[in-house]
Amino acid sequence: MTSSPPSERTRVKRAHERAAYDRAALDAVLDAGMLCHVGYMFDGYPVVTPTLYWREGDAIYWHGSSASRALRASEDLDVCLTVTHLDGLVLARSAFHHSANYRSAMLFGTARLVNGDEDKLARLEAMMEGLYPGRWSSLRPVSAQELKATKILWMPIDEASVKIRTGEPVDDTEDMAAPVWAGAMPFRLAFDPPVPDAVTQEAARATPPVTGRLTRS
Amino acid sequence: MTSSPPSERTRVKRAHERAAYDRAALDAVLDAGMLCHVGYMFDGYPVVTPTLYWREGDAIYWHGSSASRALRASEDLDVCLTVTHLDGLVLARSAFHHSANYRSAMLFGTARLVNGDEDKLARLEAMMEGLYPGRWSSLRPVSAQELKATKILWMPIDEASVKIRTGEPVDDTEDMAAPVWAGAMPFRLAFDPPVPDAVTQEAARATPPVTGRLTRS
Repeated sequence: MTSSPPSERTRVKRAHERAAYDRAALDAVLDAGMLCHVGYMFDGYPVVTPTLYWREGDAIYWHGSSASRALRASEDLDVCLTVTHLDGLVLARSAFHHSANYRSAMLFGTARLVNGDEDKLARLEAMMEGLYPGRWSSLRPVSAQELKATKILWMPIDEASVKIRTGEPVDDTEDMAAPVWAGAMPFRLAFDPPVPDAVTQEAARATPPVTGRLTRS
Repeated sequence: MTSSPPSERTRVKRAHERAAYDRAALDAVLDAGMLCHVGYMFDGYPVVTPTLYWREGDAIYWHGSSASRALRASEDLDVCLTVTHLDGLVLARSAFHHSANYRSAMLFGTARLVNGDEDKLARLEAMMEGLYPGRWSSLRPVSAQELKATKILWMPIDEASVKIRTGEPVDDTEDMAAPVWAGAMPFRLAFDPPVPDAVTQEAARATPPVTGRLTRS
């Protein structure tokens, strides 16, 4: 991959041949996921909080309760937002060359609050439509109180790196004759059938498709 | 769950009914995973690095290249190590009550280096045996150079919290008659058949079982 890092702190130091800095690679990793880990400083020590995220154009968003300590502690401050897909394990002919296949994105920036009820509603709709296309319009409107109880943070996507490993083990030449199985053990996120709650089941409502951006490729 | 937080920073503030602080709950979350996100300070800003981890008794370990910036930047410093299993999405009758099912563990502490070749080898063996029981003894010994090129960090498991959400949506009573599907969409990590590399395939070696601690329940 040919692009260059947008800043020194995004430069991938180890295994830099696995690094990318272009938006297409980044968007592919981000749009394939839902869960990120946000790192921020709180009271002088680092904290890493898992949360759902979504991307709209050149911005990444995450949200939670207005009372959330993690959101309050991130607002207007430096954060690092990391998304990782663990795609498998790699079994080599030596312990040393065992590895993992993965796609990960690391974004740096300053977390900012989404202000204004209209903006907040538009962001929530985008999050919902990304996961469950068509669902937003089937739900009652979000109340003023609910909107007030919801905080959305965002960060521009302009300082990021991607690191990807795929494929087979890379063994030392002198180990190639070793009588051990070598290759990759692939994983993936599997979607089990949706489980309706009791009221939904009684009403025999149509099961929603397991779809949205996660199942698009 | 009945235990209490070991420190103020581990106290779960939001949805505290989903929190646990006992070792059994913590070990269950840790032992079901491989991937963690480690947060640390580097040059004054937070960084979140994904890496594999393993648990041995009261300690958690992670490792990498001796040249790794992430490991060098964590050594003898405060880190936060977070493990998250995203178990599904929860579709409620209002946008507000949509949620996710998950199990997560957050550990705080000071990262310490594993010193001494014997200790390092024992830790690497434990990692390997956890993922691939029986494999370690089938591989050639780790060389002195490989051991030197490998750095292992560890942290005692004594300041941690667990947060878990399971099951159905929790809707407002006045929304229960809404004509929408409500329930949970469960995910899981699926293991696809192992893929041997070309040399392994030619030798027709027996496929290793997809096993180890991840498939024990």
